[in-house]
Amino acid sequence: MTTDPLRLGIAGLGTVGAGVLKMIHKNAALIGLRTGRNIIVTAVSAQSRDKDRGVDLSGFAWEDDPVALAKRNDVDVFVELMGGSDGPAKDATEAAITAGKDVVTANKAMLAIHGQSLALAAEAAGRVIRFEAAVAGGIPVVKALAEGLAGNEITRILGVMNGSCNYILTRMENAGLSYEEIFAEAEGLGYLEADPNLDVGGIDAAHKLAILASIAFGTEIDFDKVVLEGIGAVTIEDIHAAADMGYRIKLLGVAQMTGRGLEQRMTPCLVPATSPLGQLEGGTNMVILEGADCGQIALRGAGAGEGPTASAVMSDVMDLARGLRLSTFGQPANTLVKTQPATTATPAPFYLRMQLLDKPGALAKIASVMGEAGVSVDRMRQYGHDAGNAPVLIVTHKTTRTAIDQVLVDFNQTQVVDGTPVVLRIESA
Amino acid sequence: MTTDPLRLGIAGLGTVGAGVLKMIHKNAALIGLRTGRNIIVTAVSAQSRDKDRGVDLSGFAWEDDPVALAKRNDVDVFVELMGGSDGPAKDATEAAITAGKDVVTANKAMLAIHGQSLALAAEAAGRVIRFEAAVAGGIPVVKALAEGLAGNEITRILGVMNGSCNYILTRMENAGLSYEEIFAEAEGLGYLEADPNLDVGGIDAAHKLAILASIAFGTEIDFDKVVLEGIGAVTIEDIHAAADMGYRIKLLGVAQMTGRGLEQRMTPCLVPATSPLGQLEGGTNMVILEGADCGQIALRGAGAGEGPTASAVMSDVMDLARGLRLSTFGQPANTLVKTQPATTATPAPFYLRMQLLDKPGALAKIASVMGEAGVSVDRMRQYGHDAGNAPVLIVTHKTTRTAIDQVLVDFNQTQVVDGTPVVLRIESA
Repeated sequence: MTTDPLRLGIAGLGTVGAGVLKMIHKNAALIGLRTGRNIIVTAVSAQSRDKDRGVDLSGFAWEDDPVALAKRNDVDVFVELMGGSDGPAKDATEAAITAGKDVVTANKAMLAIHGQSLALAAEAAGRVIRFEAAVAGGIPVVKALAEGLAGNEITRILGVMNGSCNYILTRMENAGLSYEEIFAEAEGLGYLEADPNLDVGGIDAAHKLAILASIAFGTEIDFDKVVLEGIGAVTIEDIHAAADMGYRIKLLGVAQMTGRGLEQRMTPCLVPATSPLGQLEGGTNMVILEGADCGQIALRGAGAGEGPTASAVMSDVMDLARGLRLSTFGQPANTLVKTQPATTATPAPFYLRMQLLDKPGALAKIASVMGEAGVSVDRMRQYGHDAGNAPVLIVTHKTTRTAIDQVLVDFNQTQVVDGTPVVLRIESA
Repeated sequence: MTTDPLRLGIAGLGTVGAGVLKMIHKNAALIGLRTGRNIIVTAVSAQSRDKDRGVDLSGFAWEDDPVALAKRNDVDVFVELMGGSDGPAKDATEAAITAGKDVVTANKAMLAIHGQSLALAAEAAGRVIRFEAAVAGGIPVVKALAEGLAGNEITRILGVMNGSCNYILTRMENAGLSYEEIFAEAEGLGYLEADPNLDVGGIDAAHKLAILASIAFGTEIDFDKVVLEGIGAVTIEDIHAAADMGYRIKLLGVAQMTGRGLEQRMTPCLVPATSPLGQLEGGTNMVILEGADCGQIALRGAGAGEGPTASAVMSDVMDLARGLRLSTFGQPANTLVKTQPATTATPAPFYLRMQLLDKPGALAKIASVMGEAGVSVDRMRQYGHDAGNAPVLIVTHKTTRTAIDQVLVDFNQTQVVDGTPVVLRIESA
């Protein structure tokens, strides 16, 4: 085993890139002991050379062009921390692979969209792509899944994988404020991506889910088929109503291989308020991995931020320094299987909130429609009201979304429901 | 990279050994895809050849002597699943290393006591010892710590690491029965080690803590210095009283590097009832890893059982098949530092339960003694009583164990406390 220094070229010196430089500097002795080698940065690239990042860049060669950085002879590992599914990140990653470099990246968008072609290219060139930082920040979930549970048939993955959405939902509940108000607050605090729809639209979290699903099920990444619904339609009324029934609303990802194909969902769901998922506050992430032999393994930690994300990048870099060389998605990319998305979702209980017109027999009509559709009611609450519509909450027993959709059509026929009911799936780990 | 089959010799065919054979058989295709090699068992060894284990042994060579198994030419990896800190397990492990084999073991006792010498021997021979299954069953915590968080200075480890103790404590609370009654039940169900003191005395959990501490802090394992207290003295009265104050009692391990030396404790502690640690039921384990950059990472899963433990063994075996070769404790054994144990513990809040004699001013005397010792009271409750002694509960603010010990001496002087108060540390994650 070589004891030569491992030489990094880092492209992108935002929060994460600066964090990686700081960790390499302050933990040099510890890193040397743990890997048997020194890990050094030879060259860096970023949009601005002069921005103050709290780190001294004078010891590193500077490249304006990340592609040039990726090809440098004094770089063994190209560390891609620029972000963006295409453009410079992808160009430089491809250039690095062609030039015979291993790649460490935090870029979930690039992997979710181009992961299969990048993995094929890397494996053809005998190179490795590592991406612990792309999923759930500081939580070593890629490693847990691809290595720690490698002997298992994985049956299901679920979790809260976007800290910004979880921050907004928990802040809405704690402050009793609307989505719009807390969205503005989060944006002001710099908690959201430049394109906030990546966060609140659930896209960022869906990227992560699609990556994990590929590793878990040995399938080609199929991000386009993730059933995707962001948190923009979650109201403070639903948060309060869910709390009243013992639930909290989370943007929850679920991936599951079924006889009907691969289910991948990233949608607002109700989870029991006292469950570990329900208790997640602020930017914390939790990923639950379920395997045939290991049972349920839950991992919780910070989903973003300088330290946690840099920690994940360093884990990948140190694995490479230690000689670990895995296929990108845990098995050779040319053995990953193309799957069909499941056309129907696994049955679940559902939450419905609606406004009932103040007519005699309205509640009976609702109940009767549900019974006829074969949807069994677990709990129903009608709240007091001064005049006009009566707020009604229903929690069903386990049923299909198809049955729920039929119920919505039938509700409309009854002419006692005002507007369209809110429907949310209820998941439990 | 070789694509030859990786050949295992498995010594010990109890629950875990049989589980490993089953996983290798049923997941052969998946294992081949994920490692690029076949993993095959060439030879096995156990106490009885004829016992029905639900697996077909006819394809494997049989060795009565695990040392002979460990030396076989057709074995690449010696899988030690016999248990016991010394005797055949240690003899065979040493023989395997001498014969140039890598070792996978689930043996926490052997590692906690002989880990340093075994690691030195393995590293001198260019061999690897892996032991994911030795700590927290199916939870990939050794991997998370030694690899996933490798770039971090680890600041603290804490957790519930013995499922049997957690089963007993949660069963006592749920059934309202005494320690003795639930101990007998657990023994009858086969939940306890042949020597139950390994479980209820906290020894098994302390083995695990000492192993994690070595990896976390780069120190030689120092199991003898773990401050150790089992659950045998935990009463149903304390469980109820703790619950009344919002806590649950857990056998909690804490390892922390301080300016005063290395703190290692495995003792019954109070944790907030609604916290993730407090919510752990039955045989579930949780380990919380805290690092300077990653922050707090929590891992939860089954701490024992055939599937989870076999899953951890397979993770190690597959890592070896994939060519991962780490130092036993994450850095070369000859670089691990000898440390002094901390002579005093980090301050914490404490719980005290005592019987107060029914004398005027008794409570005032207690309060006054605590004030004089500089121990500040967070909450105090005196319960109603028909006659005789009054049960009193106290939760202090953060203080030292030394101050608490002074309080106990002073309580004795007051002559209003009947017997010796129960003192338990309160930890929060």
